Amino acid sequence: MIDLRPILLTIGATLCAFAAAMMLPALLDLADGNQDWQVFAIASLATFFIGSLLLLVAPGSRSPEMTPRTGFVLTTSVWLAAAAFAGLPFIGLGLSFTDAYFEAMSGLTTTGSTVLTNLDELPRGILLWRSLLQGVGGIGIVVTAILILPFLKIGGMQLFMTESSDTSEKLLPRAIQISLAIVAIYGGLLVACGVAYLVLGMTFFDAVCHALTTVSTGGFSTHDKSFGFFASPAQQWVCVLFMVLGSLPFTVLYQCRTGSLSAIYNDQQARGFAFVILAASGVLVIYTQATTPVPFEEALRRVVFNVVSIVSTTGFATEDYTAWGPFAVGVFMLLTFIGGCSGSTAGGIKIYRLQIASRVSRAHLGQLRRPHAVAPLTYNGRPITRDVAFSVVAFLFVYITTALIFTVALSAAGLDFTTAFSSSAQAIASVGPGLGDTVGPAGNFSALPDVAKWLLSVEMLLGRLELFTVLVLFSREFWNW
Amino acid sequence: MIDLRPILLTIGATLCAFAAAMMLPALLDLADGNQDWQVFAIASLATFFIGSLLLLVAPGSRSPEMTPRTGFVLTTSVWLAAAAFAGLPFIGLGLSFTDAYFEAMSGLTTTGSTVLTNLDELPRGILLWRSLLQGVGGIGIVVTAILILPFLKIGGMQLFMTESSDTSEKLLPRAIQISLAIVAIYGGLLVACGVAYLVLGMTFFDAVCHALTTVSTGGFSTHDKSFGFFASPAQQWVCVLFMVLGSLPFTVLYQCRTGSLSAIYNDQQARGFAFVILAASGVLVIYTQATTPVPFEEALRRVVFNVVSIVSTTGFATEDYTAWGPFAVGVFMLLTFIGGCSGSTAGGIKIYRLQIASRVSRAHLGQLRRPHAVAPLTYNGRPITRDVAFSVVAFLFVYITTALIFTVALSAAGLDFTTAFSSSAQAIASVGPGLGDTVGPAGNFSALPDVAKWLLSVEMLLGRLELFTVLVLFSREFWNW
Repeated sequence: MIDLRPILLTIGATLCAFAAAMMLPALLDLADGNQDWQVFAIASLATFFIGSLLLLVAPGSRSPEMTPRTGFVLTTSVWLAAAAFAGLPFIGLGLSFTDAYFEAMSGLTTTGSTVLTNLDELPRGILLWRSLLQGVGGIGIVVTAILILPFLKIGGMQLFMTESSDTSEKLLPRAIQISLAIVAIYGGLLVACGVAYLVLGMTFFDAVCHALTTVSTGGFSTHDKSFGFFASPAQQWVCVLFMVLGSLPFTVLYQCRTGSLSAIYNDQQARGFAFVILAASGVLVIYTQATTPVPFEEALRRVVFNVVSIVSTTGFATEDYTAWGPFAVGVFMLLTFIGGCSGSTAGGIKIYRLQIASRVSRAHLGQLRRPHAVAPLTYNGRPITRDVAFSVVAFLFVYITTALIFTVALSAAGLDFTTAFSSSAQAIASVGPGLGDTVGPAGNFSALPDVAKWLLSVEMLLGRLELFTVLVLFSREFWNW
Repeated sequence: MIDLRPILLTIGATLCAFAAAMMLPALLDLADGNQDWQVFAIASLATFFIGSLLLLVAPGSRSPEMTPRTGFVLTTSVWLAAAAFAGLPFIGLGLSFTDAYFEAMSGLTTTGSTVLTNLDELPRGILLWRSLLQGVGGIGIVVTAILILPFLKIGGMQLFMTESSDTSEKLLPRAIQISLAIVAIYGGLLVACGVAYLVLGMTFFDAVCHALTTVSTGGFSTHDKSFGFFASPAQQWVCVLFMVLGSLPFTVLYQCRTGSLSAIYNDQQARGFAFVILAASGVLVIYTQATTPVPFEEALRRVVFNVVSIVSTTGFATEDYTAWGPFAVGVFMLLTFIGGCSGSTAGGIKIYRLQIASRVSRAHLGQLRRPHAVAPLTYNGRPITRDVAFSVVAFLFVYITTALIFTVALSAAGLDFTTAFSSSAQAIASVGPGLGDTVGPAGNFSALPDVAKWLLSVEMLLGRLELFTVLVLFSREFWNW
């Protein structure tokens, strides 16, 4: 039997936190004189009621015991429950159940695909709630990725196991310590980003909302023109900086707390991430300047902003970059698959997996030549065990297979090939925009059929929890012990 | 140092065989009173001259020694040389160097993409030459896949190693024995297919040409309407049968020489292949009947023909199946990745790799749950060693990565996303048609820019030789011993 107590406790505590968060848009709408505040207040009460009920039925004198098995059920069920309750206000505000769930899942997974239109005319409460969802989802995924996924050995994440995270005895105090450090970094980034936006001329409300969706690499905006609403170069460069910071491993950011940036430079993953950004930006600056030359800073900024937005899986757009030409479209599609660093708010395949896969593939090529030579491989100073190598490559296989299967399923829902493929690829990577008129950077997901929205909701959760966390629950062996 | 003798001998012998083959279209054009016969005759002489020169400089009393290292260089260089000389007649007939090389590579790799138009009005010599290229390419790849790739341990092919193929001592006599068996099966299939076509009303010329391109799962036709030119249901069903036979492992077909088909039924890969065809055909019959109902046999035949044509990587079309709707497009795209069985003329990822990858991925999921349980996996009664499992999954990673990188490169050449992605996917799988107006089943590759044709030529060779065979030549370690 699975020990249900830690699961109920975590869901209960999460729901109570969501109930508290819902009071923020309620208060804002109340202050604005908007009747929507009642929706948030009622949703908050309902969420608090269920959450505290779970806390009450779950207590016990024993310290909760954490096994991998419990960890899998806990992680998936917390995200499912969070999305269900996070969608309540959207239903109260008139969205269909499908749209509400899609928007909530897109927010919590920091994807940033939206079914809402005319954002500029919406009450501030709902806009704040969308930004809060991404802010909460961002911190949620960093904690999950640093604390839980290495423990569950998901897709090679065991490589990032901290020394004591494999002994369940010290798990709780150590977990609290790590969580606090993560929250401190995340909070620091949020404040720094918000203040920078404010200083550079955003309204207080826009600064708060966009700080939440920048650092979380979520990409919801309060404007239909997304970040293109803010024409100021300085604001855009600040946004680039914080999207990059949100995509770096938080453990590495933690090592920079003394003010030295050498930890970033010494991290192989961070270097790889920088290389991807520089390479993609370089070729795209040349490509766009060759076709439609503009002043250099403008060209650089347009390219870097959108490259970073996609590879960090944020999904802000300053313009419709798919109009830059077919090569740009190809590059952005590739960036959608790559994604950011592990242990960050970014999604996608992740830099370290591509680095490890290319290392082991190259070693494999070498072994074809010299079957008996065994070269020990390392990554960031740690040995790449066969276990890690296999987990990483199996993850890549399952990732691509999932993206292709959802492409076919979305085709069955009536989407054309480009729309189906790109929306599947962006959902599993939690990017936001895909390609084509409907789901492209200039489009909107509201026009998709309901079944496509459900498929994408499932895929967003699968991708966000690194696939195996969810898929393992569907294996017969998991339930029969 | 690499022993160059076996390489020179094999290239020399191959070129002499090609020189002999070129005399067939020369004689045909001569009989037809077409001046093109001179082109084939000159190309034949030139090829024979170079081929016999290589045979002369390469002799030696020692029996040629075969190491994996030699094997890699030999396999890649034979295919490159063959494509270069096979393209000579096309140049003589007025094609540009790019088009000639593309058409020759598409033929030899049994891909079936063509840059030629107005096929129905072309002289019979060139049409026969295209068919012969696929016939020769088909037998070439079966021999390579059964004899050489397991020896080189390419992408898990070591699983199909026959007992004595790992001792280089007995290699040559054993190799000749296996080659003769393969040639016998291949020849038998060709004759049976050709006779069936003839009996069912094709002209002798069409029967010969289409038997060559059906059994080799190549897909070149002598008509612009491809196999749609033959409206007879019986002809189309015969074509389906031989495309399937060409995609089954030839080692399994060999076991059926006594007349019993139980070897096919007992082979896991063949069963998996049958399942893919039945599943894809089933859903597509339902899908097409739901939208535009036609009599059942017609619906079944249209679907099965095009499903088998794509999954066997033949690429014949009876109609533009991309007009069946977005779901059909998605399914055909998925089939393009899957491909046929190993040790056959078919390309793609191959059934056994997907079966092994899904087995080891499921076992991996099980291990996440119970880290210490080690379930021994088997495939077709043989153990899936960690070595095989890793080779297979690494192959999948490199396959998908290659397809995506060529997608971006083709985008840079100006192709739109659907065209770039689908032509990259079909080239690496040696299918033939992609999606969209240009490279779709109703299109033609002649309109592509030259650089795209070169990229696709490289990708066709990479895919046909299962990637690693070629890629290993680019590793530094390969050349520094």
